[in-house]
Amino acid sequence: MIAAPTLDTSTVTVALGERSYAVHIGPGELDRLGERCRVLGRRALVITNAAVAKLYGQRALASLREAGIDAAVETMPPGERAKKLATVGKLCEAAIAAGLDRGSFIVALGGGVVGDVAGFTAACLYRGVRFVQVPTTLVAMVDSSVGGKTGVNTSHGKNLVGAFWQPSLVSADLDVLASLPAREVRCGLAEVIKHGAILDVELFERLETELVQRPSAGVYRLTPRVGLSAALARYSVQRSCELKGAVVAADEREAGQRAWLNFGHTFGHALEAVGGLGKLHHGEAVSIGMVLAARLGQRRGEIGERDAGRIEQLCAAAGLPTRLPAGSDPEVLFAAMFKDKKVRDGRLKLVLLETLGKARVVDDVPDEQVRDLLREAAGREASDGIG
Amino acid sequence: MIAAPTLDTSTVTVALGERSYAVHIGPGELDRLGERCRVLGRRALVITNAAVAKLYGQRALASLREAGIDAAVETMPPGERAKKLATVGKLCEAAIAAGLDRGSFIVALGGGVVGDVAGFTAACLYRGVRFVQVPTTLVAMVDSSVGGKTGVNTSHGKNLVGAFWQPSLVSADLDVLASLPAREVRCGLAEVIKHGAILDVELFERLETELVQRPSAGVYRLTPRVGLSAALARYSVQRSCELKGAVVAADEREAGQRAWLNFGHTFGHALEAVGGLGKLHHGEAVSIGMVLAARLGQRRGEIGERDAGRIEQLCAAAGLPTRLPAGSDPEVLFAAMFKDKKVRDGRLKLVLLETLGKARVVDDVPDEQVRDLLREAAGREASDGIG
Repeated sequence: MIAAPTLDTSTVTVALGERSYAVHIGPGELDRLGERCRVLGRRALVITNAAVAKLYGQRALASLREAGIDAAVETMPPGERAKKLATVGKLCEAAIAAGLDRGSFIVALGGGVVGDVAGFTAACLYRGVRFVQVPTTLVAMVDSSVGGKTGVNTSHGKNLVGAFWQPSLVSADLDVLASLPAREVRCGLAEVIKHGAILDVELFERLETELVQRPSAGVYRLTPRVGLSAALARYSVQRSCELKGAVVAADEREAGQRAWLNFGHTFGHALEAVGGLGKLHHGEAVSIGMVLAARLGQRRGEIGERDAGRIEQLCAAAGLPTRLPAGSDPEVLFAAMFKDKKVRDGRLKLVLLETLGKARVVDDVPDEQVRDLLREAAGREASDGIG
Repeated sequence: MIAAPTLDTSTVTVALGERSYAVHIGPGELDRLGERCRVLGRRALVITNAAVAKLYGQRALASLREAGIDAAVETMPPGERAKKLATVGKLCEAAIAAGLDRGSFIVALGGGVVGDVAGFTAACLYRGVRFVQVPTTLVAMVDSSVGGKTGVNTSHGKNLVGAFWQPSLVSADLDVLASLPAREVRCGLAEVIKHGAILDVELFERLETELVQRPSAGVYRLTPRVGLSAALARYSVQRSCELKGAVVAADEREAGQRAWLNFGHTFGHALEAVGGLGKLHHGEAVSIGMVLAARLGQRRGEIGERDAGRIEQLCAAAGLPTRLPAGSDPEVLFAAMFKDKKVRDGRLKLVLLETLGKARVVDDVPDEQVRDLLREAAGREASDGIG
């Protein structure tokens, strides 16, 4: 029996027919994990990393075992460097050795890297077993745990190998946000800002109200002067899951509108690839990427200067970088953009804004316009200060 | 434009909604590959091994290029040992380096190993690109190229990691069968016998007529005294694709009747695992496995002694082994059977025959009955001679 939902838990449904699933959002969700998973199977492997295992591994295991689920934990190394096919191979071997069968399931306990790798492991093991996302970072809660994109990096770039494999359940315990370093919270906010910018001007404006207009030291410290309140964190998670869930439900395999979610990401992935994996965190790269994409839209006369400026201002208010790292080479960045999965027949597909809250995909931006933008951005790089 | 089908080409459709695809079967299909692939994309990577590349690589490339497709070849090592996740990783890197994008496709030119590995590569690359099966062995034509099971082996057993990923086209050139060693042809016949045994008594009886009742040196040599005529080869490929295609269309992800296709395979995979990969060829292990499964059905009173005997007789007539290899340890074999993907909650799921042409899945065979069977089979092992 699943306990009656408390007033504190919100549930968002991702509507994908027989593969539909619930996203539970609330404090204390970690201790309800076992009850919620009981319908999924009798044996599970929890995949996590050592740092997360230390904080939450025992609680997750205890909850699963109390529900009568035979559960074990397997750790993987932390960080983007572990996000590779060899890790998936090791985890599959570990899952088989732990006695998982086709009716067992995997629990991804961690941030985006754990979720992507554990999800891809679930997609491959016995040609597919079920899995549960238990995101422990803000970016995983607002973005990567929902939507079924799983995968690993290659020497050519990020997320180039993987599968669309939906979780059977997402369980986001808001309490765990308290354990996050400020930088992690800021990176999560980058994706929330993205959701506002491409889909929901109301979300965007609420972020502006709380972060730009009346910055105050909130529960989660973002910068020495700015914080994120618990209420805004909760709203951000829930609204992001609703928005992303609706996009995924309409276009699971990214034939159309799901590509909007890549706003800021073609520039961002290039920045991550050039900077060396792990140097610039994903959310930071996306922040810079969103500012670049907004400015590109502005040059094309699609979004006004004021709205483009609001994106830059909000990212800065969230404590995120908005300028290229010092020493960035525009030509190297430009070349790196072509490793993007969205490139087809040698043409960049970019997500730009028509206005705040409305995105569209374009594939007719002349190369020279992108290069100009990058050259100019490199000229006013981060050494000038943030904002 | 695809040339008008010649009288020599038969086409079987695997009906999977928007993922439906055609299986073209006929002589000279290799030279029509390009025309048939033109609708799939403008760039392709042909994955094969050195031996197959030497025989057919240039013809495949020429056909693709004549159709305006930008194609390259990448070889992988031969044999079961190469069927591992690291090979998939290398092939993904090669595909990216060759400039493939999401709209490109992969061509699997080879036997079952190439098809499984190249298909899994296609399933993973950019979270899934299209692929074409060009089977060059009888077993690939009658079995592995149809149905979308792709994957690799792990240290724990065969095909434990992979994906269901359907090809967009299968092109089986019957001419290439002429290049196969007799052992390869025999292994293909094991799967044809299987299709007859579980689904189509008419197919089974035609095989009996040509192989048991009037064995003659045919076009493809099976044993010093028995051959396979070109007409029977063609009929075997077409009927197998029809039968398997219908099963896959009804149950793509093996929730029910698709499991019938594993007749002989739970014993067979255990034999392969215990013998060391590559020692006993897959078709040979399946042949022994089918005889064991038939005998188990007989003990349970489900299939008569005469029909069980016909399976053994037909396998022997095809030149396939029907007894356990000398020195087989029944306990080791029994333990290996539990590494099967179909095991759930520690119980074996076995495919047995109700009668010739009709299979069913059972999960209530007592362990002791399986052990008894293996012990007895080990007592009259291959040293007694075949048949």
